[in-house]
Amino acid sequence: MTEKLILHEYGLSGNCYKVRLTAAHLGISLKREEYDIKKGETRTPQFVANVNSNGRIPVLQIGERFIPESNAACFYLADGSPLIPADRMGRADMLRWMFWEQYSHEPNIATLRFWLRYVGLDALSGHQREQIILKRKSGNEALKLMDEHLASRRWFVGDSITLADICLFAYTHVADEADFDLELYPSVIAWMERIMLDPKHVAINE
Amino acid sequence: MTEKLILHEYGLSGNCYKVRLTAAHLGISLKREEYDIKKGETRTPQFVANVNSNGRIPVLQIGERFIPESNAACFYLADGSPLIPADRMGRADMLRWMFWEQYSHEPNIATLRFWLRYVGLDALSGHQREQIILKRKSGNEALKLMDEHLASRRWFVGDSITLADICLFAYTHVADEADFDLELYPSVIAWMERIMLDPKHVAINE
Repeated sequence: MTEKLILHEYGLSGNCYKVRLTAAHLGISLKREEYDIKKGETRTPQFVANVNSNGRIPVLQIGERFIPESNAACFYLADGSPLIPADRMGRADMLRWMFWEQYSHEPNIATLRFWLRYVGLDALSGHQREQIILKRKSGNEALKLMDEHLASRRWFVGDSITLADICLFAYTHVADEADFDLELYPSVIAWMERIMLDPKHVAINE
Repeated sequence: MTEKLILHEYGLSGNCYKVRLTAAHLGISLKREEYDIKKGETRTPQFVANVNSNGRIPVLQIGERFIPESNAACFYLADGSPLIPADRMGRADMLRWMFWEQYSHEPNIATLRFWLRYVGLDALSGHQREQIILKRKSGNEALKLMDEHLASRRWFVGDSITLADICLFAYTHVADEADFDLELYPSVIAWMERIMLDPKHVAINE
């Protein structure tokens, strides 16, 4: 990687953490640029014009190019490395879990964590409050599906850690901050421990 | 492709259409297996045990293996073809739009289309009705972002059609069925026409 890499981020976001965890596994160093999402720092005209028209973090900057969407940024960093399976079926299966994470896991578990831990129950809108029960149910369904998948496997795809594990780990390991009871999912806990025991692992608050 | 390919699908779903449109561009033939999602045919114990533990379509079956998640199935079919950019930055940029589609486009436009066109306003739950205004707003924001991106480009990534175009086309071209006014987005219309004029194009109801 010859060009300078900058991660535009909010450090405690699991989506931003994914990109740092991927970089740590690859021995890549990232310059970190912090934005306070609670103060709307990613919605300023400057950010929208220069970094991401979608007004969201993370965005991985490579020289003059910008890659929004956490899982795409992870793919960029890991492209050509063992974190992406070398076989066609394995690659598609890894992406299957990454798309599932963004569709069926993150909107439930990450959103509840943000609402309950960062916004606070009292500050939620009525519309948000009404969604809590459904997001709780869907979040538990996602964790149950992971637990069943991991009951007979060490990693989500194939025989070693891939981006599917890294991207799913990011919000799963802080699901307790959204009041999910991870003790109900023992295979998920064993899998999280395998990830955390890797010598290349970094924590979300590092 | 030597193994038999089966698409488990509901034909009018844009997510299933993406996979067929990708296959058409590649000259790949798929056997189609139809399920009526309104009758819960993807939630049966047999489907959940054998096809997709998530109870959703599409699922691409390759021999004895199954790839759920529409965009992952498209990636499997197109892997190694010109529908996926050959350069690292292009690949990540394409995936950026595909993740964005599943996070910021599909949950708004596809969900409203399903609710308004297939379920029907009268049959929606109170919880669903309350989400219509926000999904309408977010869907229009997604279309506006696409329109701005396409104002100076023929394709989402690089100089030719990629999976980003195919995956975004699927629900954009039927957004009128969810009562979105596509006339507001002239660059989107011009881009859709480019896609539909391709000799390899197939329609959603073919």
